Amino acid sequence: MDAVKIIERKRDGATLDPGEIQWFIKQYSRGAIPDYQAAALAMAIYFQGMSPEETVELTLAMVHSGDTLDLAPLGKRIVDKHSTGGVGDKTTLVVSPLVAALGLTVAKMSGRGLGFSGGTLDKLESIPGYRTGLTADGFLRVARQASIAVVGQTAELVPADGKLYALRDVTGTVPSLPLIASSIMSKKIAGGAHAMVLDVKVGRGAFMETLDQARELAQRMIAIGQGLDRAVTAVLSDMNQPLGRAIGNSLEVIEAIETLKGRGPQELVEHCLAVATEMVLLGREGGTPQAVRAELAAALESGRALECFARWIAAQGGDARVVDDYALLPASPVQLDLPAQGGYLAELDARAVAMVTVDLGAGRHVKEDPIDHGVGIVLHAAVGDYVTPGAPLLTIHAASDAQATAASRALEGAARWTPSAVRRPPVVLEILRDPSVNA
Amino acid sequence: MDAVKIIERKRDGATLDPGEIQWFIKQYSRGAIPDYQAAALAMAIYFQGMSPEETVELTLAMVHSGDTLDLAPLGKRIVDKHSTGGVGDKTTLVVSPLVAALGLTVAKMSGRGLGFSGGTLDKLESIPGYRTGLTADGFLRVARQASIAVVGQTAELVPADGKLYALRDVTGTVPSLPLIASSIMSKKIAGGAHAMVLDVKVGRGAFMETLDQARELAQRMIAIGQGLDRAVTAVLSDMNQPLGRAIGNSLEVIEAIETLKGRGPQELVEHCLAVATEMVLLGREGGTPQAVRAELAAALESGRALECFARWIAAQGGDARVVDDYALLPASPVQLDLPAQGGYLAELDARAVAMVTVDLGAGRHVKEDPIDHGVGIVLHAAVGDYVTPGAPLLTIHAASDAQATAASRALEGAARWTPSAVRRPPVVLEILRDPSVNA
Repeated sequence: MDAVKIIERKRDGATLDPGEIQWFIKQYSRGAIPDYQAAALAMAIYFQGMSPEETVELTLAMVHSGDTLDLAPLGKRIVDKHSTGGVGDKTTLVVSPLVAALGLTVAKMSGRGLGFSGGTLDKLESIPGYRTGLTADGFLRVARQASIAVVGQTAELVPADGKLYALRDVTGTVPSLPLIASSIMSKKIAGGAHAMVLDVKVGRGAFMETLDQARELAQRMIAIGQGLDRAVTAVLSDMNQPLGRAIGNSLEVIEAIETLKGRGPQELVEHCLAVATEMVLLGREGGTPQAVRAELAAALESGRALECFARWIAAQGGDARVVDDYALLPASPVQLDLPAQGGYLAELDARAVAMVTVDLGAGRHVKEDPIDHGVGIVLHAAVGDYVTPGAPLLTIHAASDAQATAASRALEGAARWTPSAVRRPPVVLEILRDPSVNA
Repeated sequence: MDAVKIIERKRDGATLDPGEIQWFIKQYSRGAIPDYQAAALAMAIYFQGMSPEETVELTLAMVHSGDTLDLAPLGKRIVDKHSTGGVGDKTTLVVSPLVAALGLTVAKMSGRGLGFSGGTLDKLESIPGYRTGLTADGFLRVARQASIAVVGQTAELVPADGKLYALRDVTGTVPSLPLIASSIMSKKIAGGAHAMVLDVKVGRGAFMETLDQARELAQRMIAIGQGLDRAVTAVLSDMNQPLGRAIGNSLEVIEAIETLKGRGPQELVEHCLAVATEMVLLGREGGTPQAVRAELAAALESGRALECFARWIAAQGGDARVVDDYALLPASPVQLDLPAQGGYLAELDARAVAMVTVDLGAGRHVKEDPIDHGVGIVLHAAVGDYVTPGAPLLTIHAASDAQATAASRALEGAARWTPSAVRRPPVVLEILRDPSVNA
């Protein structure tokens, strides 16, 4: 095997053999192939793409670069859920209790926020006592006991992906669909998932800005799933405006609990029911989407989903009293309303809102940044709503007056208003179901 | 400035600004930009190309990365000559005395052979005493005294090119025309040339295998010359079969001397007169190609060119008696004839002949390989010639019987024969003259 030949073959548009892909990733992973050759190959892949078969091999090679988690001891078909990253995305906090209420077990690893995209671990850590760092055994024990466990990485999963992703980040080779797809899928497969629902965000506040790109990414991940015997369903959802009304860690936990109490904003409820429906369709035998959705709505209505949430939080060491007492969560000393220009809200730039929230301290510019769990933004309207001129469009929760004022100024251009009524954008744009789901 | 942004802009097809190119090369050259980012940029350039303006800037940035040589003290317009690399290419040994006989001064740096391509320095070093390692002062002194000086690199010229070329070699990014063109031109410009003739080889024994590729490379180098005020003429010549009949260092020196004595093979004479004509057209004011060519032929006929050769060799410490006594040159103990299948010689694979010659010890697989100056191959026919079956097609000059036998076996498929007459291929395929030459 010769790294240069492999780079040249990909550069010239050839399809790499499974052996070439396995060898390159293995040698790169152990440091025998230098970063500059991996960078050249990544750029060649950016231009020449990869076939479905190559993408499956790449995913498998990355899975084999480190430890893998076996979720078979849980005795159930484990359905994972992955979001490609969005703004105000507290979906995991709502759908995990929802599907647990219908008998599924959720045992998943989540990540932290970076850049405009928030992270589930950061949100959960705003709950006093919640422990994200469990051992593999502890993780399985919590999942068995509470039907839900959401933790950080428990073992050295896919080190090759970690190394390659860091390299792509500094070589202009992040936006390659086969590389994105294999990166996501390798982590999910190494994490032990038997099936998964991919929540692919589309729009200004997402990595995929067009529906076509998002659909192609979804199709590639479904193809990888087929190649590796994992059922995959993709839910393509709008991320032009933030999801729900709260952006910021403890503010999002409150919104998730409110949603589980049946008081969530309609778009968020709609989105969570759609994702949860697909998870149940993959995790159980039979059932129509309509029937599953009705069951989920009933679990929400009856409070069973909320109970599952409280049990989960307690099982991971968190103070479950937060469900009834939001004052137990971190809060900000300063609240500042941003008055609306008024009219029908036509656009609310998710990316701009996200970056202001990061500046407030809710997220990270670089990995090492500390987080302020209390700060963030609460919206009082969504696209399509009418707002009286001067009424608050949103409330800024900040650590100081100066920060609140800076945030307020930075948000001035984020909203677009029209005098005439605006159609509410659809929440779920498209669902690409795994062929195994006869729905 | 941000290396990732520059990579991304090139990746997306943008034209880089002069400032971006200068900054990237400067930072790469001093180690502030790592190899992996340069590799990613090189691969992006491979796919997206570079505009003429970008190529000029890249060339200039590389020139500025190190020392430059000033040939103004020679008081003449110095015309350099560069070959893109071929098999049996002893052109410099013949054209330098030819143009010196017409009053030009040749002051040039040459390289060593690597892979299938031979190097002028290796050929010259087969002459006892010839010194290729002069100081910059010594170089100028010899050029003034003997009108010819051909040496190795005298100073740290274009270190950025050295670094980038080594990286391209291991990242599959060698065959990018703007990168090849700027690499060649930066070395020639840093070496002080005021004008240059590029001998662009085309065919199986060359880096450019098609006329279209060779023409595009030539045009790019002419454009760089225009951007940097250097007149550039390109001679595109055939390299499907070796140039001349000798391949191997001392064997090529003998053939060059024979050519200067008026006994050279017709194709080699034709090629050298064409290159020398273009050098004189660039180096002197006025004159038509026909008139210059007649002058050069006269200098060859009269022995004046041969005298210039002897004076040059002596000025660089070499034993000029080799001109009359080839026994002073290194020779091989074993000579083995390869009999011809017979008929009209239709093809003689230059690359195959070259690789066998390297295996004999005349060239290098890797930079560190030692060289045997005496070994090589002498052809007894060129494409188009009729050879009686069983008569020798070529003679192998080897260090041992075993090597000679191995070479003989390796050469079995290198010739193709036909029963009917074959057209002799043209030596010079095309000349692209600098617009300043009114010929």
